[in-house]
Amino acid sequence: MQVSSISIAAKVPLRVKSLHTNPATINDPSSTATVAAPKWAQKTITLPPLKRGCHHVTSKIVKEVGQELSGFKCGLAHLFLHHTSASLTINENYDYDVRDDTETFLNRLVPEGPSAPWKHTLEGPDDMPAHIKSSMFGCALTIPITNGKLNMGTWQGIWLCEHRDYPTSRTIVVTLNGI
Amino acid sequence: MQVSSISIAAKVPLRVKSLHTNPATINDPSSTATVAAPKWAQKTITLPPLKRGCHHVTSKIVKEVGQELSGFKCGLAHLFLHHTSASLTINENYDYDVRDDTETFLNRLVPEGPSAPWKHTLEGPDDMPAHIKSSMFGCALTIPITNGKLNMGTWQGIWLCEHRDYPTSRTIVVTLNGI
Amino acid sequence: MQVSSISIAAKVPLRVKSLHTNPATINDPSSTATVAAPKWAQKTITLPPLKRGCHHVTSKIVKEVGQELSGFKCGLAHLFLHHTSASLTINENYDYDVRDDTETFLNRLVPEGPSAPWKHTLEGPDDMPAHIKSSMFGCALTIPITNGKLNMGTWQGIWLCEHRDYPTSRTIVVTLNGI
Repeated sequence: MQVSSISIAAKVPLRVKSLHTNPATINDPSSTATVAAPKWAQKTITLPPLKRGCHHVTSKIVKEVGQELSGFKCGLAHLFLHHTSASLTINENYDYDVRDDTETFLNRLVPEGPSAPWKHTLEGPDDMPAHIKSSMFGCALTIPITNGKLNMGTWQGIWLCEHRDYPTSRTIVVTLNGI
Repeated sequence: MQVSSISIAAKVPLRVKSLHTNPATINDPSSTATVAAPKWAQKTITLPPLKRGCHHVTSKIVKEVGQELSGFKCGLAHLFLHHTSASLTINENYDYDVRDDTETFLNRLVPEGPSAPWKHTLEGPDDMPAHIKSSMFGCALTIPITNGKLNMGTWQGIWLCEHRDYPTSRTIVVTLNGI
Repeated sequence: MQVSSISIAAKVPLRVKSLHTNPATINDPSSTATVAAPKWAQKTITLPPLKRGCHHVTSKIVKEVGQELSGFKCGLAHLFLHHTSASLTINENYDYDVRDDTETFLNRLVPEGPSAPWKHTLEGPDDMPAHIKSSMFGCALTIPITNGKLNMGTWQGIWLCEHRDYPTSRTIVVTLNGI
């Protein structure tokens, strides 16, 4: 779901005579042309609640910002998760066992429940472990844009890792910058 | 403390009739405007020594670069810590127990002292664990800018995690880019 | 090895008297200039196979993109590894024991072999641990550019961490953006 959107490109109208083939400059030699400077687009999207674990969400993200992405020949896409008990990471996009094994690893690594040493327990036994996992994987990703698409490796995908037992919808600020 | 600062905006003066204040576009080629291309600002700041542990430093960072941030309608703020024995991460901004529990987790995870398997011990027993913790959380953050402010979630804050026993001041290169 | 390269700067020709080479500003509206808007450069490089472990590759990276870097007074360099079984991190650039100790830590942290709990084992016992280590350290870095060079701390270097037993060449998309 789109919460808000900004999309801006600096345009400089000029009278020109000669043909510029540089895609960053002027396309129409015979009349007043428009020079497009680097563009910025920012959109806040919300992913529906996902159960505790690692989820491959590339298609969900591209569905929300694919149209904006298509306007960039070269640039960077920045994804910023607005939460401290979930995380974003890039990992294998094919075998769901990789996501399950990663969740298994995180749960073995971070103690949870009565034997855990945490002081911060008011929000439930899964809350403090969720904060730790969020800092381990991080809440942000920056991915290159090439020819209108996210330029990831063949086996790479965007994962949203939900670290809480009772998931909620998650907000991501997507910022696109390029030419 | 500011160590150095660069702040630049490409401006293209044009003969025009009326003043456009929108820095991003000119809608009327025959009208007056100064077109501002995307701006860059880079500033090196230094945080005073903080004791070993996780510290919420959002207000310290904003105090240093808030004025520069206010000039960006849409963009990205990049923070880069110039050290390998501390880290930057984003996590809970309210309950200090979350910071203490995270420090507890890091100290339980990374062995320290005579029983640790490290070869790199010349700089003290806390040095090699500090390097490992620095790569676990990372030394850089990129945060969206919206309407002149860091666009973080309600409960998110910037943490500087000091992993050495005898802290020193820490240098951060802040780079702002946007429109 | 360079696989592909894009390098573009938006230029706005104006009627003027003298040539300004400063890409960032025009100080005299009545004078001649070519105004260069922020530049983008994107290059895909490939690092040769490196044995399992942590490797300091700053010089290898700079050898590939140093010429492009030299054209930026202020900006950001983004490195994006196209793989899910290796990682990029920034850590100590001097004592190789730090790299060895970090590899020791990762191998102690992530179970491998018959006793490991992984379901994803078809690609070998080192594959699932490699995926986990890749998300722990991450596959991307963003580093400030100042006066044509990567602006890192005195002791910081770029590490490529190879998590597979039988290494292959690794592809990195480098995106430079600035003025």
